[in-house]
Amino acid sequence: MFYFDSDYLEGADERVLRALVESNDEQTAGYGEDEYCQKAAALIRDMTKAPEAAVHFMIGGTQANLTVIAAALKPWEGVLCADTGHINVHETGAIEATGHKVLALPGCVGKLSAEQVAEALRSHREDSTHEHMVKPNLVYISHPTEMGTLYTRPELEALSNLCRTNGLWLYLDGARLGYGLAAELSVDLPLLARCCDAFTIGGTKAGLLFGEAIVLTAIELQDCFRYAMKQRGGMLAKGRLLGVQFETLLKDGYYLEACGRANSYAQRIKGAWLAMGFPLLCDTIANQVFPILPNGIIDRLRKKYSFAHWLQVDKSHAAVRFCASCTTREEAVQTLINDIMAL
Amino acid sequence: MFYFDSDYLEGADERVLRALVESNDEQTAGYGEDEYCQKAAALIRDMTKAPEAAVHFMIGGTQANLTVIAAALKPWEGVLCADTGHINVHETGAIEATGHKVLALPGCVGKLSAEQVAEALRSHREDSTHEHMVKPNLVYISHPTEMGTLYTRPELEALSNLCRTNGLWLYLDGARLGYGLAAELSVDLPLLARCCDAFTIGGTKAGLLFGEAIVLTAIELQDCFRYAMKQRGGMLAKGRLLGVQFETLLKDGYYLEACGRANSYAQRIKGAWLAMGFPLLCDTIANQVFPILPNGIIDRLRKKYSFAHWLQVDKSHAAVRFCASCTTREEAVQTLINDIMAL
Amino acid sequence: MFYFDSDYLEGADERVLRALVESNDEQTAGYGEDEYCQKAAALIRDMTKAPEAAVHFMIGGTQANLTVIAAALKPWEGVLCADTGHINVHETGAIEATGHKVLALPGCVGKLSAEQVAEALRSHREDSTHEHMVKPNLVYISHPTEMGTLYTRPELEALSNLCRTNGLWLYLDGARLGYGLAAELSVDLPLLARCCDAFTIGGTKAGLLFGEAIVLTAIELQDCFRYAMKQRGGMLAKGRLLGVQFETLLKDGYYLEACGRANSYAQRIKGAWLAMGFPLLCDTIANQVFPILPNGIIDRLRKKYSFAHWLQVDKSHAAVRFCASCTTREEAVQTLINDIMAL
Amino acid sequence: MFYFDSDYLEGADERVLRALVESNDEQTAGYGEDEYCQKAAALIRDMTKAPEAAVHFMIGGTQANLTVIAAALKPWEGVLCADTGHINVHETGAIEATGHKVLALPGCVGKLSAEQVAEALRSHREDSTHEHMVKPNLVYISHPTEMGTLYTRPELEALSNLCRTNGLWLYLDGARLGYGLAAELSVDLPLLARCCDAFTIGGTKAGLLFGEAIVLTAIELQDCFRYAMKQRGGMLAKGRLLGVQFETLLKDGYYLEACGRANSYAQRIKGAWLAMGFPLLCDTIANQVFPILPNGIIDRLRKKYSFAHWLQVDKSHAAVRFCASCTTREEAVQTLINDIMAL
Repeated sequence: MFYFDSDYLEGADERVLRALVESNDEQTAGYGEDEYCQKAAALIRDMTKAPEAAVHFMIGGTQANLTVIAAALKPWEGVLCADTGHINVHETGAIEATGHKVLALPGCVGKLSAEQVAEALRSHREDSTHEHMVKPNLVYISHPTEMGTLYTRPELEALSNLCRTNGLWLYLDGARLGYGLAAELSVDLPLLARCCDAFTIGGTKAGLLFGEAIVLTAIELQDCFRYAMKQRGGMLAKGRLLGVQFETLLKDGYYLEACGRANSYAQRIKGAWLAMGFPLLCDTIANQVFPILPNGIIDRLRKKYSFAHWLQVDKSHAAVRFCASCTTREEAVQTLINDIMAL
Repeated sequence: MFYFDSDYLEGADERVLRALVESNDEQTAGYGEDEYCQKAAALIRDMTKAPEAAVHFMIGGTQANLTVIAAALKPWEGVLCADTGHINVHETGAIEATGHKVLALPGCVGKLSAEQVAEALRSHREDSTHEHMVKPNLVYISHPTEMGTLYTRPELEALSNLCRTNGLWLYLDGARLGYGLAAELSVDLPLLARCCDAFTIGGTKAGLLFGEAIVLTAIELQDCFRYAMKQRGGMLAKGRLLGVQFETLLKDGYYLEACGRANSYAQRIKGAWLAMGFPLLCDTIANQVFPILPNGIIDRLRKKYSFAHWLQVDKSHAAVRFCASCTTREEAVQTLINDIMAL
Repeated sequence: MFYFDSDYLEGADERVLRALVESNDEQTAGYGEDEYCQKAAALIRDMTKAPEAAVHFMIGGTQANLTVIAAALKPWEGVLCADTGHINVHETGAIEATGHKVLALPGCVGKLSAEQVAEALRSHREDSTHEHMVKPNLVYISHPTEMGTLYTRPELEALSNLCRTNGLWLYLDGARLGYGLAAELSVDLPLLARCCDAFTIGGTKAGLLFGEAIVLTAIELQDCFRYAMKQRGGMLAKGRLLGVQFETLLKDGYYLEACGRANSYAQRIKGAWLAMGFPLLCDTIANQVFPILPNGIIDRLRKKYSFAHWLQVDKSHAAVRFCASCTTREEAVQTLINDIMAL
Repeated sequence: MFYFDSDYLEGADERVLRALVESNDEQTAGYGEDEYCQKAAALIRDMTKAPEAAVHFMIGGTQANLTVIAAALKPWEGVLCADTGHINVHETGAIEATGHKVLALPGCVGKLSAEQVAEALRSHREDSTHEHMVKPNLVYISHPTEMGTLYTRPELEALSNLCRTNGLWLYLDGARLGYGLAAELSVDLPLLARCCDAFTIGGTKAGLLFGEAIVLTAIELQDCFRYAMKQRGGMLAKGRLLGVQFETLLKDGYYLEACGRANSYAQRIKGAWLAMGFPLLCDTIANQVFPILPNGIIDRLRKKYSFAHWLQVDKSHAAVRFCASCTTREEAVQTLINDIMAL
């Protein structure tokens, strides 16, 4: 069986695994106060050209999202988010469990526009009963989005300007960030650091055993963040595991190289589907592909491949998702492509 | 520098590390729904003689504690706990962040007795304003405690009977459970499974990279627990990492063997302190030792050893903690002992 | 200026006020443990033909909603609700502040149907990632709805059957219940008690200074509810004020009589608008009327009348709301009608 | 039966009741945006000599406490409080339900000293694991305390200086403030406004049907407070009831006059107990008296009087509480005194 369900099917990228093995017997301070974490944080500050940023490492995306958002908001404040946003759909109400409403807006293929955020703010302010409604105070976006789409540089800048002008935080969930950065070069880490008050650099889906780096560029969000991490159960005792992995992943351009390879695998798979005349749910240029297939073909493929059911389009067709990742092997990709072309 | 600060200074036990490396390239389902997790859970059900227990795996102790406790309680219910309890002191209010008050009782060297829990319940019930007070509905104990002490079999059974009779949950935090089990054989896993409604088997402090196994013996606590894990940010994407590690740690008696070795290291260190005439803060038989030392000796030792300051006893003396763990090397222990004996 | 903005513009109905004055100097136990509260509760159990129901009194609707819902749900459970539902829009995220997601479904003129609830449940269950999503476990409806519409007896029974079959709680927010009961006689208190697990009987909008009666028919929701009230700040020290008012309002059929009078006022106002050819946003038969008016007429009316802006229909027209209440005077209604007919 | 249990046994002071009756038929805006609330707020700003203060009105003390504290703190911050503090004991964990730990310190007859707060802060900061502990960021005191004792002017000023220097909020719960102000003239409203960042002026226990005025002197706490009130279910629909009552209570020196009368009743009762040779649990100069009585006398008195059991001192003696209030009648006091003197 070949798995294309998601980008977290295997363990770690071999280089990352080797670094873990090699550092295994060293003794270091716990809870992220070791030299590996310090070096990885310094590397990230360097790569993002944000020398004042605070960088922390947590295990997973839900944990990172809920910790940042709960730390940023007052109790009556809520999060603007595309209706498909991970925090709105697939985190079992983790944000609400910290007391905050997620204010979903209809996304455009997973994205929010500055215009619709502006309209939401205007509508809140002009309503004479606005004190009876949750006050929007943070914009959550993901890049790539849950639909695999990407923000452009002007779109991000427009969101950022709007948030700054209106006193909202802009937070970007980068669970799959590497794939996005490798696919759309005009959106790079320094741009994210300038546009966002906080964002994550996802490791779990890019070849780490686990780990998300949290970059807090807004000074006001930096104070006491380690208290916040500990309170939410997100401070890893053997914290250096995160530092070791992130340093290995990020140094010497390896992150973009590995993610770029996954993107090219996904694009080859996309090409095969298009060549065979199957439509896409939405076009994507990173590591996820969403062809719309007849039920019969889906059933046949499932005997040899595992992939995600995404959306039942009609009785006889569904959109499905194929993911490539940093740990996907070329052989599996080629086998899939051969089978697609032979359908 | 030799580190005896805690039991999470190194990476993984070598056997565990090897298992992670060997399984690294396999593709499995995510989020703990893989075969490794299933096998580890089956092994735990077997070792605890609790075939009906639900077993889950989470990353860390704070996460496990807050998830279990928040899942078990109604909003107005609180947790009875020794004042030294980890949840009361060292989790940055993680339990309160889920809405529940920790009701601290004065511990006896870290332990709660059935009598004092009974008295707390009686006092709550007899107060005519009890509806204005938090209702105690869960007893939290740790074994070993934060002071390194251990419950006896009769003490655990008395607490269990009291809780059952009064409709309270009994939850045991086993962050250092292996060391306790190896030191006090009358308290074994089947006893814990019979006495407790939920308990954890700590892995982080016993040679795993990370991981706590949660054993839910009470049927009422089992329903929907995976929702609870996900909501608290505690469902690991590459969940099989937990299964691989726990299976390796627990099978073939390795857990008790490795923890027993650490205990014997700690007891040899304790012996050296006693031989040199230094008193102990409290006597312990597992992997932690708490000598009371003059400041001068502490300062001298710090040049070569790292260990935890525990309690300033008076101006010129402090209790300090030396921990041995599954990954402690005998050479380090012997060096320390030589230096103690030469003081 | 004549006010038709809402149903809480004046103080109390004169009969209610007199009862407060007459009982003012009596000394009673506090926190709702007085005879007035007991008598009012007994009266409600009698009127609802629910001898086993627990009845409590709280100050306001938001407080009642958040206390009942937080008491009923486990942390990972959410509330199904029409998108226009008061808890979804106008309570500043009070439900989320207790940790629970409100799962909004598109309402049909403010109402939820059993069919759409069934579909939401089916969709949750069939999704293989449902543990990553909030579990729907309570259905919130209001009667009359926020749009002034009413459930029919078959609609309520269908919702109730569906909830019972699927293990969900059905909770009805009766902030304006009296107006609904007076307008739609087939939906009466015994029906509500049979169909719902919990519901409120609104007093604030029906001539009390303040007060909502909470009727808990499900035995499982009754335990420890007073703890829940106290914890949420909702236990009134001089609790008998609620008992005195509710007893006065409810006895001898006064509730329906007073609400029915308000309904007839509102219907006369509605008739005037219809007679003059203005359309309604939606037809209503209780105490709220929603005509769609040109901006010019709205501006003219505002010089003499106060009423609520509801919805901007297009650039030159808006839906507005006129409310009558138990304390509305006929003279004000007649003046308004005369002015409408003279437009 | 004569009731001396508490200061909330009757309805309203007659002047307050009359004001409610006289304003009953007026139509005003809801939710506290009426002229009565504005006038009462202006009066309070004037009496406290705090022209920049924000003043809001809520129903009860638990509600006020939880709303202010949750609005002031970040998630990982906690409240320092005497162990006898109302929020620590008698609010069913309302503060914890908003996510914050109450950090109880041993009170000195109900009071906290600046020294012990300073020591708590020092101890937190110097602990190398302080990020694993709740950060103290607000000091909660009550005046009079739950033991009936009062802060002196220098004690309050010392607490205030300490809090300002260390960046903590100082919040004073004034549930019985009037009795304190009338008993200890050196602590007046302007002093409270200068010393505290927020405090309440209790109405419920001083002759109102209900109501606590919240005075927010710190600018940073003022923003969006009405959102906070609404979210916690604490915004009264007919909000003007609070304004009407507070204006009546506070104007023309009536508050201190009425509370002073209650104090003198209590002091006459205290004098009778002392004259008969019974000791006091603690000396008090405001409206509460705590004699220590033999069980036999308690039982005899209970046939004619209702009063609160406070503390079982030994098998045969208990401390009990007698409260006088603004609505206590002199006749009842004299009857009690006669009976005490005849014991």
